[in-house]
Amino acid sequence: MAGAPKANAVVGQSGGPTGVINASLVGVIEEAKKHPEIQTIYGAVHAVAGMVKDQFVDLGKLSAETLETVAASPSSALGTSRDKPDADYCRRILEVFKKRNIRYFFYIGGNDSANTAHILNTVADEGNFDIRAFHVPKTVDNDLLVTDHCPGYGTAARFVACALMGDDLDNRALPGVKIDVIMGRHAGFLTAAAVLGKTRDDDGPHLLYFPERPVSIGKFLSEVDAVYKKLNRCVIAVSEGMCDADGETWAKKIAQNAEKDPHGNIQLSGTGALADFLAAQVKNSLKIKRVRADTFGYLQRSFAGLQSAVDVDEARRCGCEAVKLAMVDDNGSVAMKRTGNGKNYGVELFRTELKNVAEKTKSMPAEFLNNDGNGVTQAFMEYAMPLAGQLPKTEYLASYPKV
Amino acid sequence: MAGAPKANAVVGQSGGPTGVINASLVGVIEEAKKHPEIQTIYGAVHAVAGMVKDQFVDLGKLSAETLETVAASPSSALGTSRDKPDADYCRRILEVFKKRNIRYFFYIGGNDSANTAHILNTVADEGNFDIRAFHVPKTVDNDLLVTDHCPGYGTAARFVACALMGDDLDNRALPGVKIDVIMGRHAGFLTAAAVLGKTRDDDGPHLLYFPERPVSIGKFLSEVDAVYKKLNRCVIAVSEGMCDADGETWAKKIAQNAEKDPHGNIQLSGTGALADFLAAQVKNSLKIKRVRADTFGYLQRSFAGLQSAVDVDEARRCGCEAVKLAMVDDNGSVAMKRTGNGKNYGVELFRTELKNVAEKTKSMPAEFLNNDGNGVTQAFMEYAMPLAGQLPKTEYLASYPKV
Repeated sequence: MAGAPKANAVVGQSGGPTGVINASLVGVIEEAKKHPEIQTIYGAVHAVAGMVKDQFVDLGKLSAETLETVAASPSSALGTSRDKPDADYCRRILEVFKKRNIRYFFYIGGNDSANTAHILNTVADEGNFDIRAFHVPKTVDNDLLVTDHCPGYGTAARFVACALMGDDLDNRALPGVKIDVIMGRHAGFLTAAAVLGKTRDDDGPHLLYFPERPVSIGKFLSEVDAVYKKLNRCVIAVSEGMCDADGETWAKKIAQNAEKDPHGNIQLSGTGALADFLAAQVKNSLKIKRVRADTFGYLQRSFAGLQSAVDVDEARRCGCEAVKLAMVDDNGSVAMKRTGNGKNYGVELFRTELKNVAEKTKSMPAEFLNNDGNGVTQAFMEYAMPLAGQLPKTEYLASYPKV
Repeated sequence: MAGAPKANAVVGQSGGPTGVINASLVGVIEEAKKHPEIQTIYGAVHAVAGMVKDQFVDLGKLSAETLETVAASPSSALGTSRDKPDADYCRRILEVFKKRNIRYFFYIGGNDSANTAHILNTVADEGNFDIRAFHVPKTVDNDLLVTDHCPGYGTAARFVACALMGDDLDNRALPGVKIDVIMGRHAGFLTAAAVLGKTRDDDGPHLLYFPERPVSIGKFLSEVDAVYKKLNRCVIAVSEGMCDADGETWAKKIAQNAEKDPHGNIQLSGTGALADFLAAQVKNSLKIKRVRADTFGYLQRSFAGLQSAVDVDEARRCGCEAVKLAMVDDNGSVAMKRTGNGKNYGVELFRTELKNVAEKTKSMPAEFLNNDGNGVTQAFMEYAMPLAGQLPKTEYLASYPKV
């Protein structure tokens, strides 16, 4: 293939925001500035929606200080979109690219974004317009294939772990049943992170429910009952995509008039319905008086001032890597391979094919889930601990010996 | 009155946990250790419930390192209780006190706790048993009388401010209407803190609703509509105690089978009902497609690793001050007076009568609320900014000039 073209670049952020998607953006910008082949670095305002409407900001002129503030900011600084472009949509984008001599396309997002990069690249090839299309992984759900884990997960995992550490202490202080609904439509990685701050034998969460392990309401209630009888309290972390025994999500069963997003997904976040449903089940069936439920909602993906240091560093490196790859290759998705664990934790970045990531999702592997399907294994702890970073220490005195 | 007795002391934590109630506990412990009049320092397990059941831990032997970890931990490290003792209950507590020679009583909590200290002190006087009863203020609602503000508020305010900073950036990236329900049964101080991170002209939250300003659903909807038409998005912070025009809480109207706590309060936290109700109103009446609602719930009072430095320092000082006061006085409540603002921010501690704090609550003063009742004034900003501490900086690039 020909050498890297002298042309302009565009970068966009797609899908749900995360706590470090802006670090990946800054990684793309700082690496792009090092390569004379790349001239103007356009930021697409609201992702593909801005590309097709020719709405861009110039990212090459931001000060180093501004870039650092961007990298530390939650959410998607360029705005985002849930549009899922087809070939026609991509042809309209390419018209804009031709007009502006854009030949580098960097798209930070989930599996839909990898697919967009793939379609755009294919349509460009068909039109004999050479573009280099790269996907940078991003998701709090951690559900992309190939990569060991996704930028965005570690920071969301840190939020969830700190939330459950506090919530478990709250539940010790005022005992009862507490249900926390956590993001995760198809994958339970983020819900599993609820255990990362556990240090005492009886620390919660005591039960976890994942999309990967359908559970009947009867099994759920009997497990809650057993913990409550033993500890006089029970803290439960539930994925928003938790399923009934027949594999259907509880959320879908509850929400008769569920709103759907343009990808055909049912709205699971931004409503307290699942939490309130489960709380009512526990209260009514188990006759437990104090039952509370929280839905963590958007806080777990966009909270100012809370990032995992490892996650933000890796997100930035993934952004840089996409630009480096674009100097030598036509397209691809950036992925991470773990090179060590524990104190030797580290990752190497590598290129994978867009089609390996596009339109596919990963579930929690079986070795991360306990036999009952309501907890995690040591293998998960070793996988996730380095990603969330060191967690705060806590004390609880009421369990000290009585005098 | 006689000099401070040589006797044992008890400390308890009452009511809802906060992010710094443990710092007040540590303040009591570290100051008590300095005074030879105080012998054993008992921690009451689950507050008055532990006192009446003779359940105590010995707090005098904790290492300095453990005490620092306690001070940094959210929730109530001794456990808490919502019991509201009457004179009979207090007489039973005093039987335990006599047996253990406890003559110092330190109770960290809200206005109910000040009342408990008052009743206990009165009943002890009637029985000619000299105890010294002190209240240390605590509440995330910031609704105690006399004191300039309450320990616990600054940390919760910091959480809410960081949450809204992130959530506003999320709403910019994916525009729509976002409703956030925030703790505050009778006082809107914590909801008002949602604005503390605003720096850009069009930053959200754009509308705030407080218990102090009843609002009809019609007025609420027309205000949301106006913001949405102007900005194509709207972020709203709502107190859980938000009232209809007739002064009744929306929560009460919604929850026909509302659970009541032992104080006769309706359960407002731990349910997403108000948020979902308001979201449905906006969606159905204004025909806005993307409407989301989150209820922050217990995260805002018990989240590991997030404290306001000013708040944690003041909470600890208030704990110390109660012990100092007990060396020279019979009873009282610790209060704070602001000695300067902005860069000169500081507080002096002083004693006030228990009855000045007991069973009363403070609302937001009129000068903190704007004329429409849906926002705050500069006076509130100056009041609350020092309490939450310095907030993270953020950037949003999509609003930069297009090229």
